[in-house]
This record gives sequence, C-alpha cells and structure tokens, in this order.
Amino acid sequence: MLHPQDDRYVLTSPTAMPQAGGFLWNRRMMIQVTCRGYATAQFMQPEPAKYSHAPNLEAKSFMQPEQAYYAHHPGRFFYVKDEETGELFSAPHEPVRGGVDRFEFSVGPQDLRWTVEKLGIRIELTLTLPLEDVAELWSFAVTNLSGRKRKISVYPYFTIGYMSWMNQSAEYRHDLGGIVASSVTPYQKLEDYFKNRLFKDKTVLLCEQAPDAWEVNQSAFEGEGGLHAPSAVNEERLACGDARYETPVGVVQYRFDLAPNAQEQRRLLFGPAFDDAEVAQLRTRHLSETAFAAAAREQQAYQKEGAGVLSIATPDKEFDNFVNRWLARQVFYHGDVNRLSTDPQTRNYLQDNMGMAYVKPASARAAFLHALSQQEPSGAMPDGILLFAGAELKYINQIPHTDHCVWLPVCLRAYLDETGDDAILDEQVSAADGSTKSAFERICLAMDWLLHKRDARGLSYIEQGDWCDPMNMVGYKGRGVSGWLTVAAGYALKLWSAMCAARGEAALAARFEAGVQDLNRAANTHLWDGAWYARGITDDDVKFGVAADPEGRIYLNPQSWSFLSGAASDDQRSLMLAQIDEQLATPYGVQMFAPPYSKMRDDVGRVTQKHPGSAENGAVYNHAAVFYIYSLYTIGETERAFDALRKMIPGPDQEDYLRRGQLPVFIPNYYRGAYKEYPRTAGRSSQLFNTGTVAWVYRCVIEGLCGLRGDGNGLAVAPQLPAHWPGMSVTRHFRGATFEVEIKRGAVDQVTVNCDGAMLPAPRVDNIEPGRTYRLEVTVP
Amino acid sequence: MLHPQDDRYVLTSPTAMPQAGGFLWNRRMMIQVTCRGYATAQFMQPEPAKYSHAPNLEAKSFMQPEQAYYAHHPGRFFYVKDEETGELFSAPHEPVRGGVDRFEFSVGPQDLRWTVEKLGIRIELTLTLPLEDVAELWSFAVTNLSGRKRKISVYPYFTIGYMSWMNQSAEYRHDLGGIVASSVTPYQKLEDYFKNRLFKDKTVLLCEQAPDAWEVNQSAFEGEGGLHAPSAVNEERLACGDARYETPVGVVQYRFDLAPNAQEQRRLLFGPAFDDAEVAQLRTRHLSETAFAAAAREQQAYQKEGAGVLSIATPDKEFDNFVNRWLARQVFYHGDVNRLSTDPQTRNYLQDNMGMAYVKPASARAAFLHALSQQEPSGAMPDGILLFAGAELKYINQIPHTDHCVWLPVCLRAYLDETGDDAILDEQVSAADGSTKSAFERICLAMDWLLHKRDARGLSYIEQGDWCDPMNMVGYKGRGVSGWLTVAAGYALKLWSAMCAARGEAALAARFEAGVQDLNRAANTHLWDGAWYARGITDDDVKFGVAADPEGRIYLNPQSWSFLSGAASDDQRSLMLAQIDEQLATPYGVQMFAPPYSKMRDDVGRVTQKHPGSAENGAVYNHAAVFYIYSLYTIGETERAFDALRKMIPGPDQEDYLRRGQLPVFIPNYYRGAYKEYPRTAGRSSQLFNTGTVAWVYRCVIEGLCGLRGDGNGLAVAPQLPAHWPGMSVTRHFRGATFEVEIKRGAVDQVTVNCDGAMLPAPRVDNIEPGRTYRLEVTVP
Repeated sequence: MLHPQDDRYVLTSPTAMPQAGGFLWNRRMMIQVTCRGYATAQFMQPEPAKYSHAPNLEAKSFMQPEQAYYAHHPGRFFYVKDEETGELFSAPHEPVRGGVDRFEFSVGPQDLRWTVEKLGIRIELTLTLPLEDVAELWSFAVTNLSGRKRKISVYPYFTIGYMSWMNQSAEYRHDLGGIVASSVTPYQKLEDYFKNRLFKDKTVLLCEQAPDAWEVNQSAFEGEGGLHAPSAVNEERLACGDARYETPVGVVQYRFDLAPNAQEQRRLLFGPAFDDAEVAQLRTRHLSETAFAAAAREQQAYQKEGAGVLSIATPDKEFDNFVNRWLARQVFYHGDVNRLSTDPQTRNYLQDNMGMAYVKPASARAAFLHALSQQEPSGAMPDGILLFAGAELKYINQIPHTDHCVWLPVCLRAYLDETGDDAILDEQVSAADGSTKSAFERICLAMDWLLHKRDARGLSYIEQGDWCDPMNMVGYKGRGVSGWLTVAAGYALKLWSAMCAARGEAALAARFEAGVQDLNRAANTHLWDGAWYARGITDDDVKFGVAADPEGRIYLNPQSWSFLSGAASDDQRSLMLAQIDEQLATPYGVQMFAPPYSKMRDDVGRVTQKHPGSAENGAVYNHAAVFYIYSLYTIGETERAFDALRKMIPGPDQEDYLRRGQLPVFIPNYYRGAYKEYPRTAGRSSQLFNTGTVAWVYRCVIEGLCGLRGDGNGLAVAPQLPAHWPGMSVTRHFRGATFEVEIKRGAVDQVTVNCDGAMLPAPRVDNIEPGRTYRLEVTVP
Repeated sequence: MLHPQDDRYVLTSPTAMPQAGGFLWNRRMMIQVTCRGYATAQFMQPEPAKYSHAPNLEAKSFMQPEQAYYAHHPGRFFYVKDEETGELFSAPHEPVRGGVDRFEFSVGPQDLRWTVEKLGIRIELTLTLPLEDVAELWSFAVTNLSGRKRKISVYPYFTIGYMSWMNQSAEYRHDLGGIVASSVTPYQKLEDYFKNRLFKDKTVLLCEQAPDAWEVNQSAFEGEGGLHAPSAVNEERLACGDARYETPVGVVQYRFDLAPNAQEQRRLLFGPAFDDAEVAQLRTRHLSETAFAAAAREQQAYQKEGAGVLSIATPDKEFDNFVNRWLARQVFYHGDVNRLSTDPQTRNYLQDNMGMAYVKPASARAAFLHALSQQEPSGAMPDGILLFAGAELKYINQIPHTDHCVWLPVCLRAYLDETGDDAILDEQVSAADGSTKSAFERICLAMDWLLHKRDARGLSYIEQGDWCDPMNMVGYKGRGVSGWLTVAAGYALKLWSAMCAARGEAALAARFEAGVQDLNRAANTHLWDGAWYARGITDDDVKFGVAADPEGRIYLNPQSWSFLSGAASDDQRSLMLAQIDEQLATPYGVQMFAPPYSKMRDDVGRVTQKHPGSAENGAVYNHAAVFYIYSLYTIGETERAFDALRKMIPGPDQEDYLRRGQLPVFIPNYYRGAYKEYPRTAGRSSQLFNTGTVAWVYRCVIEGLCGLRGDGNGLAVAPQLPAHWPGMSVTRHFRGATFEVEIKRGAVDQVTVNCDGAMLPAPRVDNIEPGRTYRLEVTVP
C-alpha cells in the first residue's frame, strides 16, 4: 500500500489513509494536497491569503491541525467521462469516489504525482510550483489502454469558491486563454481599502491549449447532480456560462478522440493574479512544455540548497530514507519561508533558524541578529518577530509569554557549534529604542531578565503562558510560576555561562552559573514531587502536575529540561525515567502529559479545555518529545532516545502507517495521545508540518545518534547507536569539509577514531581543512 | 407550483426555487430554512452565536444576502431507507436529491411543514420554535401508503459541524436521552475566557422516544458513500460511535415495521445548551406531545401580538394575502428582536421601531427614548444603538456615517400620527455625558447638528458614508458632500419645523424652516444636473451621479427625498420622473442607481466595487425603492407609487416567482438589478429579510394606498387607489377604535366620507372613541 520508490513515497490506495498527502512550497506560497485531491494553499501578500476558497465565508486563522475535509473543501479534481457510455470517474479520487483499477499517488520533494486507471483510460497528473511566482503548474496525460478507439472528455476542476461577499464574478477570457474570476477583498474600514488595493484579487485557471468548453459557475456546473455527479457533465459540452455575484469555479472540458494506446497531454496554470497584465505574464512565463521543465529544474536546484549536512546508512532503511530525503527538506522549509508567516513566534523563529544553522548558516546568522534587534529595553524578547514593515503581532503573539529569552543561547549554541562563527557575538545590534549593543551584551541582558523575572522562591513567573502556550490561567495575576521555565532558564544560563567562560568573561560566567545553581535549587526545593518535577504553581499557590492530581499529573517538559539544566541528580533521573515510561510512553511516542483533562481546570488554563480526544490534550506533542530525546542523548540514555526518536516517523509497518494516516515525508506537530483513555484515535497524525520539532530532530540525529557535533575549532565524535545496530555509515558536511564516517561496534571501552588511516588521540578532529574529505573509522563500545 | 393556502404558502417543487424557504423566530433565536432542508440559525448569548455550524472555521459576520449553499451547509435532513430493498431517499430534498412522487413545502407564520412521498412512504415534517427557549422542535410522521407491510428506517440528520478548533466531541447520552456534542468556544485572550464561560457550548439532539441506533461522528457516518449516500446507512444499524476532536453530527435511526396505512410519529429537539442540567430541563419542558402543542399555541399568541392595524380586501388577492398575513409579521420581527443584533444601526433601529408604532406602540416609544439616551453631546447620533450592557459597535457601525440624526423626526412623525402621544417629546432623557434634556430638546439639538455639518455651500458633509453606507470614499478627507443627505436633512427639518409649530414653538419652527429653505436652495444651486439631482460632490470637488457619468449616472435617493423636502419644483419633478422611468425602472422595481459600476471608482467608494452582477450594484434596493414610493404617494403620483409597491412582492405569476426565487412571505432587502447589463440574474431575491424596507411598506399601505393616516386627534382619509381598481375594503385599527372602510370610485371631485351613515364635512374622523367600530363609506374620484 505504501512504499518508498527512488526519492518518492508512493501510496496505492486512496481510502486507506484519506488525509495523507504531501506539501510543496516556494518562497511565496505553500500548498498541501491530499492523495484524494483536496488542497490547502496560501500565499503571501504579505499576509497569508488564499486564491482557492472554502464554499462559505471562512475565518482567517493560523494553520490548523487535522484539517476537516468535506465535499466542497477546496480541491483539484479531474473528471473523466466516456463520451459513448456516459460513464464517469474522477482523479485523484474526489469527488466521484468509487473504485478504480489502479491508483498511485506519490510525493517527491518537488512534485506530487498521481496515476489513476479506470474504464480502460489512464490519467496521470503532476503538480509542481515555479520558484518565483505564486502559481500551481498542473499537467495531465490521458492514455487509451483499452485497445479500441475511444471518445472521452476530461474536465479539470479547480475550486475557486466563495471569494468575497463584496464582489465575485468569473468568465472565460479568450484574450487571456483561460478562466478569470474577479473579486474585491471585503473591507469596511477606510484604512483597509488602501491596504487591499494591491491584493491579487483574481483567481485564474489558464490553459496552454484552448479547451473545447468551460464552466465558471459553481451552481450551474453541479445542477441537481451535485459535485459527485455534476449535471453539466451529463451534457455533451459544458455551457460556457458566467458567474455574476455567484460562486465561481474553474472547470474546462477537453474532448479527445483517442486511438488505441494514444496519449494526449495538457498543461494548466492555477493561481492568483492582480490584473490582466499579470495574467498574461503568468501565461507567457509558465505555460509551455519548456517552462514546465524549467520550473522543475529550478525547484530541484532550490531543494538542493536545502540539502543539509548529513546522509546516513543504517540497518533501518525507512529511517535512512526519512533522514536523507525528507528531514532536511522540512528544516529548510521552516527556515527559508518562516512557515509563511509575517510574525513568527520568537521561540519558533529562533528554533527554525537553529535548523538553518545546518542548512544555510548565513540565513541563521541574519535571523538571530534580526531577532535581537527587536529585543525590548528590559532585555525581554517580544512574543513574535516582525519580518516585514507593516507586519503585526497576531493570534497567540498578542498573549504575553515569558519564555522567549530562553531560546537565545539554546539555539545559538547549535549555530556556534556548526559554524564556529564566534564573531556573531560581537556584531552590533541596534534596537527600536535607539540603543546599540553587541549581540553578546544583548544576550547577557536577556539572561539577566530571566533571572529577574522570578518570585521570592527563585521560581520563574509564567504570566499568561510559557512555551506551553495554552496554559494561560496559572499566573495571569502575576504570582504563578512555571516549573518548566525554571529549569529551562537554568539550562539557558548554563549554556550561556559556558559561552561567557569561552570568551574569557569569567565574572559573567560565574554570575550566570550562580543563577543556574539558584534555579536548580529552587526547582528541587519547591517543585520536586517525589518522583518527578511539578509543572508549576498557580497564582493561588496550588502546585499542579503532581502525583495528587487525577488529571495532568505528570508533564514531560519539566523532566526533560531538568536533565538539561542539571537540576536532577542521578537518583532523581532514575525515578523520573521510570515514571515517564509508565505514565507517558505510547507506541507513537511520549505524551506531553497525562492523564488528559476531562474538563476545564480554571486555575491552570486553556490547555485543560482541550478535553478528551482534543488535539493537544495528552498528545504526543513532538516538540516536547524531541526535547526529551535531546535530553536523553545528553545524559547518555541512548536506547530510550532512539526508541522515542524512531517513533516520530511513521512506519515501518503498514499498520503503523494506517494508524497515523500519514506518509513519512514530514514530522507532524503531534500524534494524538490519550493512549489509555481513547485508544481508537491515539497515534493519528495532525498532518500539520509546521513545528519547531524538526530542527531539533536534525540536531538529535547529528549530535546524538551520529555524535558528530562541532566543538570549538573541531568536530567531536561520539556516536550513540541503539543496541540492536551493529554499525552505520554517515556522510557529514562540516565547515566546508566532508566526513565519510564508518561506525562499528568493537571491543573498546570508549569511542576510538581512525582518521584517514591514523588513530586519533581523542575522538575529535581538529583544525578542519575546508574542501578536504576525511575518512573516519569509528569504533564504539 | 406555488399557491397560498389558508394562512400558508405552499411550494410543490424542490428544484424550481431551490433557495426559497421561510423563517421562524422567537425573542432569543431565528432560523431560516430552505425548502430543500438547508438551515441558518442563530441565537443570542447575547451576541449572535450558532449551534449548527459550517464544516470549517467560519468567519463571524453580519447576515449575508444570497447565502451560498453547498453539500455540507448546515441542514436538517431525514433519510428514509427501505430496509428490504436498500432504496433510499431524503426529505425535504437534500442531500440525496432525485425525484420524489410528491413534494409539498409550506410556510406558515409559526411553523414550516413538508410532505414528501416516495417508495410508497409518506414522510411529514414540522418545525416550530418554543417561545422562550433556544430550541428547534421537530416532529416527523411516516405513513405506509403502499398497501403492504413495510420495514423502513428513518434517520433524522442534524448538522452540528465544526464547533471549535479548541475542542469538540460528541456522544449519545442515555441519561439525557439524546446526542450531546460538547465544545469550547476558542479564545486566546485571557479576557475572552471570562466572557465565554457562560456560553452554551453544547449542541444537543434530544429524542422523545429512544432511537434504535445513532451516529455522532460525521466522517464515520458518511464513509466513502458521502453525504448523499452515507455508508453508515447501508448497514442495518448505525454504529453508535463517538466523536473525539472529530467533526460531530447528530443522526439517529428509527426502525419501523409498518402495516398498510400505519403511521408512526416521533418528536425531536435540537439546539444549544450550557450543561447537563439545562439539557435535562429542555427535555422536560419541551419533548412531549402536550409541550409541542403548547409551544404552537404560544407561538400563535406571540404572532397575534404582532398582528398590526390593517386588513385589506382589494382586487389583487396576492397583494392582500401578503399585506394581511405577512407584512405585519415582518415588521413585528424587526421591531421585537431588533434583527437579533445587540448594536443595531441607529437608522435601522429607528425605522424598525417606526414599524412598531403600528404594532406595539409602547415598544416604539421606549426605543425612541433609548436611542436618544445615546445621543452625543454635539447632538450627533451614534452609528449604532447599544441594547445590552457590554454590547459593542461592530462591523459597519465602526465606520462614521453622517445621516443618523435625519431619522429622528422622520420616524417619530409616524409614531406621533399613529398614537397622538405628543407627551413623548416632554420625556426627560439622560445621556452618558450626564446631561438630562427633554426628547424635544434632544431632537432640536440633532437638527442643529445637521445644519451645522455642512460646507460653505450649504451642502451636508458625507464623511465616510451616509445611509448608502458603501460610499466611503467621497468625503473621508472631510470636504465631500452628499446630495441625498442635503435633501434628507431638508426633509427632516421640514417635519421637525412643523412639529415645533404644533407645540407653539414658533421661533424654533421658523429657524428650522429657514434651514429647509437653505438646504433646498443649496441642492438646487449646486446639485441640480439638468434633469435630476447629483448624488454628491467628492473631496476633490468632482460631482457624481450626473449625466456626464458613464456609470452611476443617476441615483434614486436624491430624487425621492427632494420630493419630500420640497426642493424639486413641479417642472423638475416631471423631468426627474421621466428619467427614473427610463433609466431606473425594471420589472422587479426601481433600481438604486444605474448604470452599475464595472470597476472601482476611487473617489466614490466601496459601492462601486460591487461591480457587475454584485449584490447591491444597480440593485432594486428595496429600502431605497420604498422611499421613492413613499415620496410618490406624498406628491400624489398614485399610479407610479402602486406599480413600484406591487413589484416588491413576488408574483402573482409563476414566472415572476421563478425569476425571484422567493416565496411572497417577506420582502427581501434587494432584488438583483443591473437589468439591462445582466438580464440573466436581474430580479433574483437576496433572500435576506432584514431590511428597513418593511416598516415603510407598511406605512405606505396605511398612509398612501389606504390613506388612513393619524393626524392630530383624528384620522385623515385620503385613499390613493390605482386606476385599475374599482375599490377596496379596509379594516383599520386606530387608537383603540376599529374602522371598517369601504372605498369606491364615484363621480366626486374629491374624497368624500360617510361615517356610520352620515356624511362628514371633511375627509377625516376626529375625536376617536376607543372601543367603537366606525363604518366608513369612502368615495374617491
């Protein structure tokens, strides 16, 4: 049903995993398409906008997990009709549905493809994106497999949907060679008029070859037959109508007389445009065989820019395939387009750019400095980083959170390890308040802010939320504290203290190290609950995330980060790991907390409202899970670490794919949890590929599993292979050099490294020479 | 296909007018249902909210015209399956569609009913609302018409939809006897949590008799079959599943063994609830045969409160039927529930309550005083009137408009005529600024504000809009003026001057009359364009709505109101009427302006963006049309007046119904215009029954057509019958008395009135005695 094929993933049933699909992007747009033909696309102007709309007035919102599909969800459908018998099917699968003789959907890094056969006809679909324009490039080929002459019609159907209550219309434009739907983005406030004037309010479906007929009126197309059996398709030709303040649609009809084995191919372009001139330009630029080929080449080149620094060969081929072909792609997506947002959350922006440290270090560098330029005079970091002039903090970024400073040293550490670019810390960064300080000074300021924002007990205030953003009721009165943030601040300070020491700033290093001790002490004094750390203490001094709680009893994050901060002793760790195994581990990864809340806890907050079965309630929230994994590698818990890491990627068995409902081409932000309470839905993928998880997974594979971490002027070597692997091979690009690494088990007490035939005195390669290829033979115990 | 039957309207085809339907309301909710089973319902908590949702995250918006329906639009469907053959149909029509043997949909004032027959089974559906709770009361009866024993299943299907991204789930609750779906209204801002706590976040489908099976999971119900052929219905029994962060649905299955001619009946309740206790209470209170009967009686009694003051018998039976059975109902709806809004636009609030002057004068009185209590210190009226503590100005009410003061004397005049309650003007009204003034003083202040808000030419500033609210670009820089508002202010001042005079306030009367003269002079000097008045002059001194304009050349409102204000001389009127006939008249009424705009006019504004085919662009906007009618009655243009009035009501011929697509049970806010440019869509009803039109239609029928207007302490009699009517009968309730009026044509020069056998000296009845029935014989020339 599902198998990797070259660099693609192939799915051969449209019903087994109906939500599964793939996503494509360029710097200005993103499209997620399911194997059955539903699509969610957005582009930047500069705020996210749509050109293929829902059938009603849809709310603007952040990207939602577990997208709900329904008959009129935006989609790209290809109806195929036998002109002689009137029989009908549709590719990929929606909206006619029903069995086909062959179905094949495959996701490649730069295109999506389908092959569908029925009624002796094969139809092949390909979608790719150009690199610089907002446009979908579609081609379809129909082949007569029946051994006799056939008369068929193919009707590409593109949802335009409910564009605007203010105005919408559509018509076929012979001069432009396609369907042009026009609208005006609705507004009531005068100032919005001036904002909206340059919006691309047209949606176009352009045809390289003129169609035989078309329809642009949704209701005329469907008639009484409905979307699954449109009345207009029963006629010989579509009616070539118009839409006047009626819901538009883009449908064209191609009539083919096909000799046996004959094939016909057509190319289409679908997307938004500002005016006729732009429509004409889109056509000229993209709508030809050569332009399609050029777009594919450019996409390929673009993807290559994001190829990353790692290739592995292990006994687990599915794992290799994901790491080698898909993981860096997802990291690159996050870092290069910032999730198609104009105001990424500060913690996301920093982590996504931590990933870019491996993929495009110059971008990461610029991003860290850009983030620091928005630091507040107090040292606090804002809730989101504005990327464009005129961008505004939206949605959750309007809610004050107290954790953003933590991510500065945590993410910067990876960048410095990978690049050795210590000079970044000396960069002068000007902020909105007119102040100019070095990056180093700014991070010191941020660390002092973390130390300052604590109560008399030394615990970190949570205010309206920390990283776990739905927790908005714990401390809104100003007294509640976060267990996670206390140890997270400890970890940040610990890293920063070491960086200060490395720069020779001994006094600062000592001051921050004292802060670490104080935070860890406070955590142990006030939050240790006997076998794990509490999640926090409310405004009214109620400790939660503790053994006495029937729901939300144990949270993962305070435990993982206490491993990182050093708060937990060895004895404490053993107790915690046992509880995590018992209370949080599931076949799909480690839950964020358990048991799930069944009702609102007024003193804890928003997350608790996400009650049974709800997305994040007791989910395997991968962003939390990956810190657990990272912390496990840090403390040498190799088996637990790999086990949890492996569970982030669907497969390898068919049952696991089915359960999760996702192709292993990205890591979603969560898998459904509540494993004990709601086994039916546990494990299901959110299908949402926007997540801070992926940069950390990449880091875990590089630093943890492969143990090939930059360190000072060299590369430290400390692989952590799971016990059932006899060895692995790694190609690692690092500071301009290439390392071909063979890792094997051997009768050694500690890691030994043979570099180009010579044993190294310690497991590290120093003084890396750019351009050189190093061959390492690594033996591990 | 369509015919009146008793007090109902009956439609016998589900396909001829697919959008046609009816609406029901009580003081806390409203539901509009199409003949095919789609439904739009909202209730107040206190802001408008939904319990039956779209399949996606829908935007909150004001009520939209020309609702777009699609497969998963919220609906109430009853699938009927023959258990022996597996054949399936659905009533009313969606979602299975397909032909049936009999279809009958009828709208009554307090219920909606369907009768559908297919496969030898009759299913009858009835929907009514209780008076005090938010709940739909549904009953269905199935009858075996086939003459043989039958095994059937009936599956009532109620859309619950995408409740919340934060949480949604559903299950069948044996203890409560029905399906309970739970959600949490999403929020991110802390303060919203406290607002949302008391929201009715549950949606329930309660069953008087326990069903045989159920399904609450939308996707499990549909399976691969889809909504039109749900997979779950192919099984013997529904699976009795649950929904956990999955889109919920309410479907129950009743299995029946029906002997020939046997009938089974079931009752269901659908609506929102806060908690289990409220669910239980809803059940106890409403879910029985006696409770359903009681609800029907209460609804009937409620509707009777809104019966109005008029009953007519004319040669036009369709017209009579509308006026006698439906018009006052629509007036009552507007006035009693304020369109289910918490911040009605000031002009709407005043006009809706002008309608209440006829229906519930005490409500009108309270509303006028309430509106005045929100007057600003400058005399300006706000853009909306807040009805509840905590209500906020929303949507278009956040855009400053300059016309609100106009409506005070215009609407109050009708109230005073109908009630003779001059004492209202002496009521002391306190405002938010702490000031207390009499209503009279406040209206004087408002009139002074109108006089003040004019430019050096004496023309009224438009700022970001006047009554024609989309016209937001004309005067946003502060210089543009409105032609309509100039003459509308003139009309308001003319009325108010007369009211001042009647109170003996001669100086004030003179001052305001001087204002009238000045406004009319300014209009004639600066806006007269040769054959009509211009619509306005922009900030940059461009006159528009003039002969030189290729689009938006002539607007209706400035003409009608110049008749009312007295700006137009007899000669001017003749020129204007000819142009209106030529440029604006259509078979569906008089367009608001013509020709429609084909593109944005940056200096005019939002309306111009509603280009070809768009809702209000060149529409027969009934609110504008009714003022034309009112002005025509005022100047004695009887034929034109009745002709335009008659066109507001669909019918009487079938072709007209089909074109408009609406049952004549309400007047919509517009019929599509652009009659010359887009004949295909011209005439189509907006299906939106919220409109300031209806109070004025009622007033036109009373004052104009019937000519039975209150005047001082009496009733003036001046009928204006269209030429083709030989006469008419009227029953008019007025100040506690009843007037039985027979109007006939006769050889008279002017109207004569015989009252209870005696000729009156003048056509008016003075010193009305409450409780008395007067019999008037009226002879008109």
